[in-house]
Amino acid sequence: MDKKLGIIATKGTLDWAYPPFILASTAAALGYEVRMFCTFYGLELLKKKLDLKVTSVGNPGMPMPMPMPVMLQALPGMQGMMTVMMKKRMKGKGVASIEELRSLCIEADVKLLACQMTVDLFDMPREAFIDGLDYVGAASFLEFAGESDVCLFI
Amino acid sequence: MDKKLGIIATKGTLDWAYPPFILASTAAALGYEVRMFCTFYGLELLKKKLDLKVTSVGNPGMPMPMPMPVMLQALPGMQGMMTVMMKKRMKGKGVASIEELRSLCIEADVKLLACQMTVDLFDMPREAFIDGLDYVGAASFLEFAGESDVCLFI
Amino acid sequence: MDKKLGIIATKGTLDWAYPPFILASTAAALGYEVRMFCTFYGLELLKKKLDLKVTSVGNPGMPMPMPMPVMLQALPGMQGMMTVMMKKRMKGKGVASIEELRSLCIEADVKLLACQMTVDLFDMPREAFIDGLDYVGAASFLEFAGESDVCLFI
Repeated sequence: MDKKLGIIATKGTLDWAYPPFILASTAAALGYEVRMFCTFYGLELLKKKLDLKVTSVGNPGMPMPMPMPVMLQALPGMQGMMTVMMKKRMKGKGVASIEELRSLCIEADVKLLACQMTVDLFDMPREAFIDGLDYVGAASFLEFAGESDVCLFI
Repeated sequence: MDKKLGIIATKGTLDWAYPPFILASTAAALGYEVRMFCTFYGLELLKKKLDLKVTSVGNPGMPMPMPMPVMLQALPGMQGMMTVMMKKRMKGKGVASIEELRSLCIEADVKLLACQMTVDLFDMPREAFIDGLDYVGAASFLEFAGESDVCLFI
Repeated sequence: MDKKLGIIATKGTLDWAYPPFILASTAAALGYEVRMFCTFYGLELLKKKLDLKVTSVGNPGMPMPMPMPVMLQALPGMQGMMTVMMKKRMKGKGVASIEELRSLCIEADVKLLACQMTVDLFDMPREAFIDGLDYVGAASFLEFAGESDVCLFI
């Protein structure tokens, strides 16, 4: 029987968008049945128009093109600049964009789930999200998680 | 046999307090045996007097009532203001407070565990914590985790 | 048969370096086979010369010797000062340093894995890392994870 991977994706930044999509697409390629439950800030990953930013503040472990003191990182515009630099580096290295990885996941039958409670909490209109999502609750996802071989909270 | 959910709760902010308590209470309602090991900053979740704050700095994925540049978010008082706004929104939407979710977990027999090593490290007095906790180490929790169906590091 | 623990270590700060190494060494002591896949910022944990810092910005749950407003925490030098204070406290309490915990893990046969994709992405020279690492991809780690009893994303 196929192995199962459950992912609870809770972060909405550019850097933390990579782990869930890379793990999901890799597992799907290996024949896993994959379900990704996007909740809290992770709902950003399901938006039609992705607007994800790198966050460096509070993230001293981030290898950056040049080191910057925390104070500077909080300057207006710095976050946008770092996001641009990160995207450039990704592209230069042939790493797929989040949009591309997400499409790859969908093509590979990764099931993308949106947390209904969070959607309600922040009054997010369904039109903001990509089509084909299932809107479910934690209980519904736990049913799958309980049967999964690997379940990760990201 | 009942399914088992292990949670390692390591964050002590208002926003990150929700996932462990929501998952724990939902799983318990589904008949899971649940143990939640609170360690590092996660020990804040077990304090008698909860004083959890939302953190927006370094958290660009957070959907906020109004967008704010990183610099502004670091201003004194801003964190408190965002915490108040978040709590209001939660309440207005009928989402339970962390105190309520925690009580729900205890009533549903979720076992709350405090990490003894962290308690010692920060000289936290036991009187600061709610009653009925077990104070254990990582080895003790791993025994349960090894038998669990789902184990999440939050 | 021995139990298996898989860890995906993705954070590169002093505080978040503790959970993976403590869990890995504890599990190894209990007879677990442990593999730790270091990816993204988690690669910092495999550097020969560790230079990990505490991050307080965006981390209101952190119990600090004295409370500080967010603004102050962003001041130049403050991060370094907090790192020094944290290290002193750890040492005074007899908590092993990350270097010591890492050595302990290696002696206990914890398999440390470096994410080849991240190494390539940031042009990290192999000489910067400790010897004896395996450089692998997510697919390779997932094979182990699929057989593991516990798998954590940290």
